[in-house]
Amino acid sequence: MNEVSEWVARAQAGEPRAVARLISWVEDGSPDVAEVMSLLAPTSGTAHVIGLTGSPGVGKSTTTSALVGALRARGNRVGVIAVDPSSPFSGGALLGDRIRMQEHATDPGVFIRSMASRGHLGGLSATTPQALRVLEAAGCDVILIETVGVGQSEVEVAAAADTTIVLLAPGMGDGIQAAKAGILEIADVLCVNKADRDGADTTMRELRHMIALGERSSSAWEVPVVKSVASTGVGIPELLDLLDKHFAWLTESGELITRRERRAAEEISALAIAALKRRLSAQEPELLADLAKAVVEGQLDPHAAAAQWVERLLA
Amino acid sequence: MNEVSEWVARAQAGEPRAVARLISWVEDGSPDVAEVMSLLAPTSGTAHVIGLTGSPGVGKSTTTSALVGALRARGNRVGVIAVDPSSPFSGGALLGDRIRMQEHATDPGVFIRSMASRGHLGGLSATTPQALRVLEAAGCDVILIETVGVGQSEVEVAAAADTTIVLLAPGMGDGIQAAKAGILEIADVLCVNKADRDGADTTMRELRHMIALGERSSSAWEVPVVKSVASTGVGIPELLDLLDKHFAWLTESGELITRRERRAAEEISALAIAALKRRLSAQEPELLADLAKAVVEGQLDPHAAAAQWVERLLA
Repeated sequence: MNEVSEWVARAQAGEPRAVARLISWVEDGSPDVAEVMSLLAPTSGTAHVIGLTGSPGVGKSTTTSALVGALRARGNRVGVIAVDPSSPFSGGALLGDRIRMQEHATDPGVFIRSMASRGHLGGLSATTPQALRVLEAAGCDVILIETVGVGQSEVEVAAAADTTIVLLAPGMGDGIQAAKAGILEIADVLCVNKADRDGADTTMRELRHMIALGERSSSAWEVPVVKSVASTGVGIPELLDLLDKHFAWLTESGELITRRERRAAEEISALAIAALKRRLSAQEPELLADLAKAVVEGQLDPHAAAAQWVERLLA
Repeated sequence: MNEVSEWVARAQAGEPRAVARLISWVEDGSPDVAEVMSLLAPTSGTAHVIGLTGSPGVGKSTTTSALVGALRARGNRVGVIAVDPSSPFSGGALLGDRIRMQEHATDPGVFIRSMASRGHLGGLSATTPQALRVLEAAGCDVILIETVGVGQSEVEVAAAADTTIVLLAPGMGDGIQAAKAGILEIADVLCVNKADRDGADTTMRELRHMIALGERSSSAWEVPVVKSVASTGVGIPELLDLLDKHFAWLTESGELITRRERRAAEEISALAIAALKRRLSAQEPELLADLAKAVVEGQLDPHAAAAQWVERLLA
């Protein structure tokens, strides 16, 4: 047995160090990842993947932690990926996450991992699905992906999840902010956390109004708006129940397969482009230097040069 | 004469509407851009391209406007590209820029253009060099690229410029902020604007100290630190003088050719990758769907699927 298959076997046995090692390989873009993924293919797609996103301060980590507790109480094996797109750090190096999640840190049925997107070829859209496969191989049947940050990363994370929870907090026109940021479009479940604060009902009304106005492509699922106080556990059983209902709907409607196939097609395309980039870079540097020289001297335009550079690869 | 070459001829004659049209094609990724660039190749690289960047509030637009005035006074034909990486708007639609630049808006020797990066294939690193060629064809011998925003976009803009000015304002540890953001590494000239405010000399000392500590790859050019009050024109002649000196140094040292060839190589690579992406997408969708299905069913891993998808293209 070579080293790679040994680490895979240890991860499949649920050894935390092996799981961490394999996810690090994914993050680092190690050449061994292809072999790892090949070994993990049979257990791929065995978990319900739940994305959890929202603006800073809405209580994402507290809610994640509360959900982990509820899932563990009913016997699920749980993976958590905390994504910080702005951080150059990763690999569980985010002290903040560890503190917030520390009640689960010693539970052998919970795997917690921080991931950063910076500097990775293809970003989170390339690394997240592969990290999911590692956690699935380790026996996780529910995986929570928590995203800190705004913008593109949420959309990428939603693309990797079966079910996406968008978390909001009462007041400050948060609903309108969310609508502006396009965040409502990715939500399968909307949750107003910190609902013991003033304005929770107003925010819920705003959100329901906006959902009624919006046009969603998969209209068969009506996006529910719920409230919670994650710090005390209020609303968490109801939220979990909705997650189960959404997964059941996904499965019965065939939407689960549709989403996962779309996701796989995007992943294949991203990996194909990364492979083509590597092949382009591996071509004779002298030829590229000559083409660049001709462009600078005005003998060739960059499109024609690019066409030559591509033809060289395809020839 | 076909329509494309007619628009190119009109842009070369300096007609503002034609210049605007061609840059819009570049922004929209029109299929006619390849032909445009082919026609523009001979005039490519004829301008001194100056990047101007810095945090919000340091006076970038005021400084750009003052530099345009000084350049026009000595007879240069000037292009200005105002880049707002976070804005979905473009094409001169940014009212703010028009107001700040309005003293030059009716000058036929000045072309002003706003560009946004959002949604463009390859982003600003792909569109900026092509917009520069349009402005060069229209006879601009100096082009200023002003970037609003932070992070990656500055670096991309610096990559498109021959000379990069980093603008700062006194106080608030701005120098340290700049160092943290890696902005000092891209500066050819550092300018402390709003130098009539308290702390200008301290900021200049800080910056000189940081430059002395830093290790720059092209050590032959010592990055000067100057001060200005762009709103009153103080320091603008000295700044312009330094830009000329830097361009002379670039030319004499051979660094100009080196930088432009590196830039052209990156542009060729970016266009080649975009072309390969288009070719991948143009392959039989049924095959990709089959591969995605096999991945979802666990019969194939995504790397193996990507390899098949790439081989199909290269076959």
